[in-house]
Amino acid sequence: MTIAPEQDRLNAQIAFAIEIDKLKRVIRRNNLMDDSRRENDAEHSWYVALLAMVLGEHAPPGTDIQRVVAMLLVHDLVEIDAGDTFIYDPVAVAAQEAAEKAAADRIFAMLPAPQGQELRALWDEFEERATPEAVFAKALDRFAPILANHHNEGGTWRLHAVTASQVMQKVKIIEEGSPSLGAYARELVELSVTRGHLAP
Amino acid sequence: MTIAPEQDRLNAQIAFAIEIDKLKRVIRRNNLMDDSRRENDAEHSWYVALLAMVLGEHAPPGTDIQRVVAMLLVHDLVEIDAGDTFIYDPVAVAAQEAAEKAAADRIFAMLPAPQGQELRALWDEFEERATPEAVFAKALDRFAPILANHHNEGGTWRLHAVTASQVMQKVKIIEEGSPSLGAYARELVELSVTRGHLAP
Repeated sequence: MTIAPEQDRLNAQIAFAIEIDKLKRVIRRNNLMDDSRRENDAEHSWYVALLAMVLGEHAPPGTDIQRVVAMLLVHDLVEIDAGDTFIYDPVAVAAQEAAEKAAADRIFAMLPAPQGQELRALWDEFEERATPEAVFAKALDRFAPILANHHNEGGTWRLHAVTASQVMQKVKIIEEGSPSLGAYARELVELSVTRGHLAP
Repeated sequence: MTIAPEQDRLNAQIAFAIEIDKLKRVIRRNNLMDDSRRENDAEHSWYVALLAMVLGEHAPPGTDIQRVVAMLLVHDLVEIDAGDTFIYDPVAVAAQEAAEKAAADRIFAMLPAPQGQELRALWDEFEERATPEAVFAKALDRFAPILANHHNEGGTWRLHAVTASQVMQKVKIIEEGSPSLGAYARELVELSVTRGHLAP
């Protein structure tokens, strides 16, 4: 590589900064905790990054929480191009993979080298769940909507006729990242079934 | 202090997690980059935290960027109670200080010890701009709306009749955190004046 002049690096970073503002307009399936509207990807990314700081002690010892935070800050950027996927729609999930990889190719390449590759590697790590940090990050990404849907008396689950056994597949992903958060999520799901907010 | 049982710690952390969701409903003055709507505090917090990762090389050598990221993730939580303050309204800014301290007392105290105190200390550090990390974090907090308003052909500046000399006071805060970002912000402000999007 050639070393770009400092101003070129900054210009590329600013172009990236303008581009990623679009994440604020990618709308997710779940609602806010007060059920007032659907959540967007940018505020979700803030939320799970801060959850990592707050709930970090529930990760396996030795997990690098600052790396988890960084991963969660970039984990949804590909949805600027690929859109949000409803995790309970298996057809959409399968089709999404190629679209997200193409998005990652485009978006992270806006940054100067080697910064673009470094952030892309963080995203790849998250997707592959290949490290304790990625496993914990993915657990938080699954934990947040379960907390919101439980709080919203079923929320998206009721709207899309999701069943407890489907949600329990996501609880397994949480358990893999954190036994205590997994147990907590399992209790929330069971409580939602008991209260009639989630089909068994 | 007494050591709370693990379940009590987690329950307190979850109560905090439910509480901070409210940050998504605190609305700021500036619009998104596409001018479609006003920005909220949660998505703004994500944005500046990620900016810290992307623009970290423009901070003074030795600045701990992971600490800057953590600081920016919590920097606006007090606005859940105290609301957003328009930084060009000096009367509101003065009245805000006591309200924000009371909010910090309430919100961070929801967390178990010593975690609540640690996050509160991060917020105090940000407010006092007492460390290189806080100075850089505050610079990014000022940089983001200037970038958005420049991109929006004046945006909030036009709406509230803000002048270039007022914006230049904020540019000074950016320069203190990063000479290169300060110079960039100064250029944006001058360009906005030249284009008639900001009153001189």
